[in-house]
Amino acid sequence: MKYLLTLASLFLFTVYSFAQKVDYDKKVEELGIKLAPPATPTANYVKAVRTGNLLYLSGHGPSRSDGTSITGKVGQDMTIEEGYDAARQAGIALLSTMKAELGSLNKVKRVVKVLGMVNCTSDFKDQSKVINGCSDLLVEVFGDNGKHARSAVGMNALPGNIAVEIEIIVELK
Amino acid sequence: MKYLLTLASLFLFTVYSFAQKVDYDKKVEELGIKLAPPATPTANYVKAVRTGNLLYLSGHGPSRSDGTSITGKVGQDMTIEEGYDAARQAGIALLSTMKAELGSLNKVKRVVKVLGMVNCTSDFKDQSKVINGCSDLLVEVFGDNGKHARSAVGMNALPGNIAVEIEIIVELK
Amino acid sequence: MKYLLTLASLFLFTVYSFAQKVDYDKKVEELGIKLAPPATPTANYVKAVRTGNLLYLSGHGPSRSDGTSITGKVGQDMTIEEGYDAARQAGIALLSTMKAELGSLNKVKRVVKVLGMVNCTSDFKDQSKVINGCSDLLVEVFGDNGKHARSAVGMNALPGNIAVEIEIIVELK
Repeated sequence: MKYLLTLASLFLFTVYSFAQKVDYDKKVEELGIKLAPPATPTANYVKAVRTGNLLYLSGHGPSRSDGTSITGKVGQDMTIEEGYDAARQAGIALLSTMKAELGSLNKVKRVVKVLGMVNCTSDFKDQSKVINGCSDLLVEVFGDNGKHARSAVGMNALPGNIAVEIEIIVELK
Repeated sequence: MKYLLTLASLFLFTVYSFAQKVDYDKKVEELGIKLAPPATPTANYVKAVRTGNLLYLSGHGPSRSDGTSITGKVGQDMTIEEGYDAARQAGIALLSTMKAELGSLNKVKRVVKVLGMVNCTSDFKDQSKVINGCSDLLVEVFGDNGKHARSAVGMNALPGNIAVEIEIIVELK
Repeated sequence: MKYLLTLASLFLFTVYSFAQKVDYDKKVEELGIKLAPPATPTANYVKAVRTGNLLYLSGHGPSRSDGTSITGKVGQDMTIEEGYDAARQAGIALLSTMKAELGSLNKVKRVVKVLGMVNCTSDFKDQSKVINGCSDLLVEVFGDNGKHARSAVGMNALPGNIAVEIEIIVELK
């Protein structure tokens, strides 16, 4: 009987491991990323809305660890590398909102779509390299399930002069 | 028997009232908003497409009551307040299209997503305050069901130099 | 018996013809359009993601037949007509990705949404006429099922200075 129970436990564990190879919450910790509870928007909108098994996230900007926004136009006030870091921070803000909405990142099935908007000069051409900061983060955390359809584009101005604004659509389990 | 019927009617009325506390069509009237039948697009696109229980609305611009477009760049030709009014008018245009597509606004379950694009100068920073004109309207009409995920961003140019262009996704009952 | 089989064949043929009046793959050929296998993105994103019966396509730019990108700002380096042609080429790139993802364009039920972004000067007003290049193509190929909700907007800069970037959502059968 004891033997049977052990066997059953082992079997269930294997099934579970197979179904959920990576713990996304743990993965975020391992990457040394701290997810803060996101600030509530002051206006008449919310950070995320779920419809069916899709979660639509609002456009998120990048913040430093002290909570201040990362601002400036890439190609004028910022280098591509600084833009990349800003896009990664916007990605962390998106993960924070997902965690707060869902309780656990393990409820994410797939990142479907990213719209990455870069505050930049009109002769700037490397929006893709900037938005990679967010795309790379999503794949670091979710693996192949983090790969998404994407548009990376240039904007002449963003709210509060933030460096990037990124919105995403996520499919839930 | 008569008594039972009255009781049943009362019960059904209560259930109905609970399920649909607010009549959105009436709410629009109460707000003094007139929804006009929307103009047909001249090109090969339509004002809205339904797929499953989602309604995708095209980017809508703002019009005055005489039908002419509200044009100009916010931060140069228009103040934030004028931009806010323009965003409200674009919101009214979106409500008009919803009404025309659905017959009644009461078929709306939830506003899911708003992409608010502001025609502005490259040093303008208050896109959020402008797009609030549309967001506030949606919450005035639909209450908590009007709260949405949102991106509010700056554009260097919009068709016909309209002040804002706003597209939304709506979940239907 | 032979007579019955002929009748049955005729009946099945009629049903089939009714269900699928137009062969979209054939239609593309008839239009003289060659769909090339799309290049793999070099970064951590993919050309398209399917969720449920929706296919989200990444922002696609326009290429010449030799594979080089069509670049420049409309209103400065390009005329409206050249912009229209660029948008048509971006549309062909989108069709190529659909074909590669789905095997056949006949799996498309409906084009739901187009976001057409035009690289242009800040005084350019004809984004709609430019994006018509893509919208007209979609209706040439898919007929009424190609009609979509749309936003056509101006951008101050796009990756690699491409003339347009267009992303679409397609409903599948």
